[in-house]
Amino acid sequence: MAHLIIQTDFGTGSASVSAMHGVAAVVDPEIRVDDGNNDVAQFNVLDASESLMYLLPYWPEGTVFVSVVDPGVGTARRSCVARLSNGSYIVTPDNGTLTYVKERFGITAVRQIDESVNRLKGSEDVHIFHGRDVYAYCGARLAAGIIDFEGVGPEYPVEEIVEAEYIKPEKTAGEVSGMINEAGDHFGLVGTNIPFQWLSESGMEYGDTVRVIVLNDGNTVLDTSMPLEKTFGCVPIGTPLIFSSEMRTAMMAINQGNATKEYGIGFGPKWKMIIKKV
Amino acid sequence: MAHLIIQTDFGTGSASVSAMHGVAAVVDPEIRVDDGNNDVAQFNVLDASESLMYLLPYWPEGTVFVSVVDPGVGTARRSCVARLSNGSYIVTPDNGTLTYVKERFGITAVRQIDESVNRLKGSEDVHIFHGRDVYAYCGARLAAGIIDFEGVGPEYPVEEIVEAEYIKPEKTAGEVSGMINEAGDHFGLVGTNIPFQWLSESGMEYGDTVRVIVLNDGNTVLDTSMPLEKTFGCVPIGTPLIFSSEMRTAMMAINQGNATKEYGIGFGPKWKMIIKKV
Amino acid sequence: MAHLIIQTDFGTGSASVSAMHGVAAVVDPEIRVDDGNNDVAQFNVLDASESLMYLLPYWPEGTVFVSVVDPGVGTARRSCVARLSNGSYIVTPDNGTLTYVKERFGITAVRQIDESVNRLKGSEDVHIFHGRDVYAYCGARLAAGIIDFEGVGPEYPVEEIVEAEYIKPEKTAGEVSGMINEAGDHFGLVGTNIPFQWLSESGMEYGDTVRVIVLNDGNTVLDTSMPLEKTFGCVPIGTPLIFSSEMRTAMMAINQGNATKEYGIGFGPKWKMIIKKV
Repeated sequence: MAHLIIQTDFGTGSASVSAMHGVAAVVDPEIRVDDGNNDVAQFNVLDASESLMYLLPYWPEGTVFVSVVDPGVGTARRSCVARLSNGSYIVTPDNGTLTYVKERFGITAVRQIDESVNRLKGSEDVHIFHGRDVYAYCGARLAAGIIDFEGVGPEYPVEEIVEAEYIKPEKTAGEVSGMINEAGDHFGLVGTNIPFQWLSESGMEYGDTVRVIVLNDGNTVLDTSMPLEKTFGCVPIGTPLIFSSEMRTAMMAINQGNATKEYGIGFGPKWKMIIKKV
Repeated sequence: MAHLIIQTDFGTGSASVSAMHGVAAVVDPEIRVDDGNNDVAQFNVLDASESLMYLLPYWPEGTVFVSVVDPGVGTARRSCVARLSNGSYIVTPDNGTLTYVKERFGITAVRQIDESVNRLKGSEDVHIFHGRDVYAYCGARLAAGIIDFEGVGPEYPVEEIVEAEYIKPEKTAGEVSGMINEAGDHFGLVGTNIPFQWLSESGMEYGDTVRVIVLNDGNTVLDTSMPLEKTFGCVPIGTPLIFSSEMRTAMMAINQGNATKEYGIGFGPKWKMIIKKV
Repeated sequence: MAHLIIQTDFGTGSASVSAMHGVAAVVDPEIRVDDGNNDVAQFNVLDASESLMYLLPYWPEGTVFVSVVDPGVGTARRSCVARLSNGSYIVTPDNGTLTYVKERFGITAVRQIDESVNRLKGSEDVHIFHGRDVYAYCGARLAAGIIDFEGVGPEYPVEEIVEAEYIKPEKTAGEVSGMINEAGDHFGLVGTNIPFQWLSESGMEYGDTVRVIVLNDGNTVLDTSMPLEKTFGCVPIGTPLIFSSEMRTAMMAINQGNATKEYGIGFGPKWKMIIKKV
C-alpha cells in the first residue's frame, strides 16, 4: 500500500482537503493519506512544481502525490498521472505543475486519466472540484493497487507535458543568478533556483562577503552586501546572509528576522537574484 | 475500525486538536483519526452544520464525526451522538450543530452521552474542554467498537434535537433566493443554500446573464448582472459568475479573483442572495 | 509501534513538516505520525516547552515527541532524546525546550544523538534542517523500534539539561502571581503558570470577584476586577472572567470575546499576572 500525499492551493485545514482524504478512505479504508503542502500559492503552477521537488525525495519510492493547483479547472487541459524516475507518481492537471519535475527529477512516462473509469461515480455533473472527484479518486485507486499505471488511461509522449516559463539559473566567473522561487511570510526565507555549489564554482566561499542584487521585472529592489555562511547562527541576530537551503540552492535570510518583509521581496518569474563575488 | 473525524472551531494546527487525536490514540492505538475542518467560524453552529453536510457524503459509511463548536461549554445543553441515515455518527453538543443534518441528510436516532461512562477518567474537574474529555473520548470509544450506539447513553426523541434559525431557500418563476452560508477569505467563494437545479426550474440556463442581489439584514450590498456558467474558466479572468458548487448549490465567484473581498460579503442568517432571470 | 508526534515553529501546513512525515515513512512505512503543534511561537523554547506539557498527558505512554524550535540550528548545542517519567520520549535540541518537562513532568534519563548513526544518510552537507535530517529521522527510528533508547547515543546527566529562565508562580495569603505563558490570537485566551488550586488556598472561591493585574516588564497593562467562575457561560457574553484552564492553571478570557486583543496582552518571561482577593 503506497502513501497518498495531497498538495493543493486550497489552504491548510480546508474542508475540501478533508473531503479528498475521505474519498481516498472510501476507495480503501486502509489507505495511508497525508498532506504535502496545501498552502501552495493560489493558481501558481510553478510554486506547485517547486513544492513537489521539495517533497519528492523525502517520501518513500512508490508514493502517489496528488497535486491540485488548477486555474483552468473545467476547461481544456489534460488530467494526467506522471511516473517518475524513482517509481513515485504525480496525479495532476497537466498545466505546468510538472515543469521542474520533468527537467530536474525525471519523468519516465505519462498517461491521461480516463474519467470514464477513474472518476468518482455520481460526480459527472460537478464541474469545479476535480481535486476530489478525479485526482484524489484516481490517485487513491493507484495507491491502493486497484489499478496499475496502465489502468490510468492512454499514454502520451513525455515531450508533450506542458512546461511553464521561468528564469533559468546562470553561472559565469564571479557571478551566479536565477529566479527567486520562494519568499515566505513565516521565516521570511528568500529561496532561489541557483545550485549552491555554483557559488564555489564561481569563486565564492564560506566566510566571503558577497554582493546580492534582487530585481523585480528588471527594477532593482535590493543591492547590498552580506556574508556567505553555513547557517543562521554564524551571523549576529538581525544580520542577513546567503547560505545553502535544504534543497542545496542559494538562499537569503536574516538571522531570526524576516528578509521577505524587510526587503519587500516576492517570488515567481519576474523576480531575479544575482550574487556576485566582491 | 471506523474512521474518527475531528471538526472544531479551535483553528487548524491547534494543540487542542492534537490532544483530541491523542485521547483517541489512548482509547485505541490502531484508531484512524483525521481532521475534518478545524476552521469552523467561531461559536457558529450553522457553519459547523454546513461543514458536516459538506464532509458527510465523502467519508465512508460508519464514520464517526466529532464536532466541537460549543459556545455554551460548561452550561446546560445536551451532549449527544446522532446516528445518521447512512450509518455514520456525529458526536456533538446538541446546540444547533445538527440543524441541516436533521433536515436534509436524515438522523435515525439520537442518544445523550452518559458522562459517568463516556468521559475521560480524571477529567471531571475540567469544565472547559469537553472536546477532548467528552466528545473525542466518547467518539473514539464508538469508532473503536468499545461501545455500540446503545452504549452512548439514554435515547431521546429526534424531534427534540435543537435547530438553529436560518433563511430557507425559496423558488418562484424567474427567481430563486436563499441564505449565504459561505464567504471564504481564501478563494473568495460566496456559497448559498439554493439548490442549483432550482435555477433551471425557474427558467435560468447556462449561458444566460442573471441578476444577482445580495442583502445584509435587508440592506442591498450588491445588485449586478453576471453570467450563469459551468465553471470559472468559462469567463475571463476577473469576471464574476454564478455556477454550481461541488455541493450542487448556487455559488458566486470571480474567476481567479475574490468575490468576498471585492463585494464585501459576509455569511450567516443575516445574509441573503436573490438570483433573478433577466 | 509507538506514535511519533511532530512539533515545530515552522507553521501548520508547512512543506517542511510534510518532509519530516516523509522521512519517518521512509524509516518505516507502518509508522504512526501525527502533528502536535506546528505553530509554536518562532524561536521560543519556552512556548515549545509549554506546548509539550499540554500534549504529553494526552498521548499514549511510549509516544515519541519530536520538537524542533531551534534558534541555534547549526551552532553548538546538544541534540538529545529525553526519556520521561511515563515512558514517553522527547527528541529535541537541548536549548531550553525541556525546561518545564524537567521541572514538572520528570525526565529519567537523557542521551545525546549520535549523528554518525542517527542522521539521514546523504544529509551531512545540509546545515539548516536538522528537524528533518536528525530529529525526525532519529525519532522515527526510536518509534519504530529500530533503535532502543541506548541506541540514541551517549548518556549525560539530567542535571545538565539546559533550562530557560522564566517567572515562577508565587502564592501568599490573598494573592497569587505567575508568568503569562499563553496569549493566543484565536480565542484570545490568556494563560498562566499559576496552579488554579492556589486561588482557593489563597482564599479565592468560585463566585468571588477578584482583582487582576497584568504587568509587562514591570509596567501595568491591566488592573481591573472580574469574577472567578467555572466556565465561560457563567458570565454574560463580552464579560471577562478568571477560570481553570484545561491545564488546571489560572486563565483569563472574555466570554465569546478576545482578551488578548482587547487588553493588548502578550506572553513570555516579561509578562506577569497577579490575582488578588478583593
